[in-house]
Amino acid sequence: MRILLIGSSGTIGTAVYAALSRDHDVIGATRHEGQARVDITRPDSIWDMYRKLDQVDAVVCCAGGAAWKKLRDLTDSDFDMSVSNKLMGQVNLVRAGIDHVTDGGSFTLTSGILAQQPQPGSAAVSLVNAGIEAFVRAAALELPRGLRINAVSPPWVAETLAKMGQDPKQGLPAEVVAKSYVRAVEGTDTGEVVRAGKQ
Amino acid sequence: MRILLIGSSGTIGTAVYAALSRDHDVIGATRHEGQARVDITRPDSIWDMYRKLDQVDAVVCCAGGAAWKKLRDLTDSDFDMSVSNKLMGQVNLVRAGIDHVTDGGSFTLTSGILAQQPQPGSAAVSLVNAGIEAFVRAAALELPRGLRINAVSPPWVAETLAKMGQDPKQGLPAEVVAKSYVRAVEGTDTGEVVRAGKQ
Repeated sequence: MRILLIGSSGTIGTAVYAALSRDHDVIGATRHEGQARVDITRPDSIWDMYRKLDQVDAVVCCAGGAAWKKLRDLTDSDFDMSVSNKLMGQVNLVRAGIDHVTDGGSFTLTSGILAQQPQPGSAAVSLVNAGIEAFVRAAALELPRGLRINAVSPPWVAETLAKMGQDPKQGLPAEVVAKSYVRAVEGTDTGEVVRAGKQ
Repeated sequence: MRILLIGSSGTIGTAVYAALSRDHDVIGATRHEGQARVDITRPDSIWDMYRKLDQVDAVVCCAGGAAWKKLRDLTDSDFDMSVSNKLMGQVNLVRAGIDHVTDGGSFTLTSGILAQQPQPGSAAVSLVNAGIEAFVRAAALELPRGLRINAVSPPWVAETLAKMGQDPKQGLPAEVVAKSYVRAVEGTDTGEVVRAGKQ
């Protein structure tokens, strides 16, 4: 398959790039490097990226920021950023990408465990993750030409916890998380939220 | 209790107003009428409303629009409206209201069954409803002074179905939905999504 991977340089994205590359032709996209360039917070940048690509068989998104701050510290700008980035950025990758994915192809987005299991500081992140999951369930009912859409919901990732100075053993290694993305791309499910590490 | 009810003139809001008014002092707020005025899509309007009120014991929101359209017909503006209205409008009612609710008081927001059970046309609505539910779960972990926050998730409402020319018997009457709001306000739960009609 020819697969567009947005966020190919992040912690999870790097592992997904490696895992998908074993059997597929993966086009990495980030804001500043990679074969394709995209700023997912800007719809025009998303449309521009797709225009420059031929058709792809799958789109995978491991990109998307959201503000991690205490509720009282979250500003209007923090919510705006979170919504325009991980939430609407991914929604717009689907909206703009529909005509660029081959029949029976797929979208695989990223949500996260905080959708269901919040922590202090996760109000904006939880909102965004749950919004993506509901969008995926709904969009699956309407995609044309057998296109599929799913979200992978990672738990805390070991490498991320290590960077935060916390115990990486409390998280799942990125290469294990990556397997859920591969299954979503190669499988037949649609409208599913795949809890990484739970399969 | 002194209760601020935003969206007091809508299908559900009217029933909630009637139900809460039996035992409480309810201040109705809408965009164009009622004791208080607010446009929840404008943070300055929300802050202004709270400034004009004394403290309240509970804030209930039955307001909030979101675009019901096929995925391919949803425009950038439709998503912007949906996010700024039912999603961020309700989030901002909480953020701005924290200091205006008495110790142990509560926020009760509105989501909807489409968060979990989408239909063709519900992509934006489902996203918004699920986002609100996750925000409620997360914010409950951080609210000060014993403040509580919950969401009521109504199914299709009989009166709404009737207006749409559909069988009202497939929905729940607004006065039954209203009971879930009363329970959320008078109860002790927090961080809960109350499925109206399921209790």
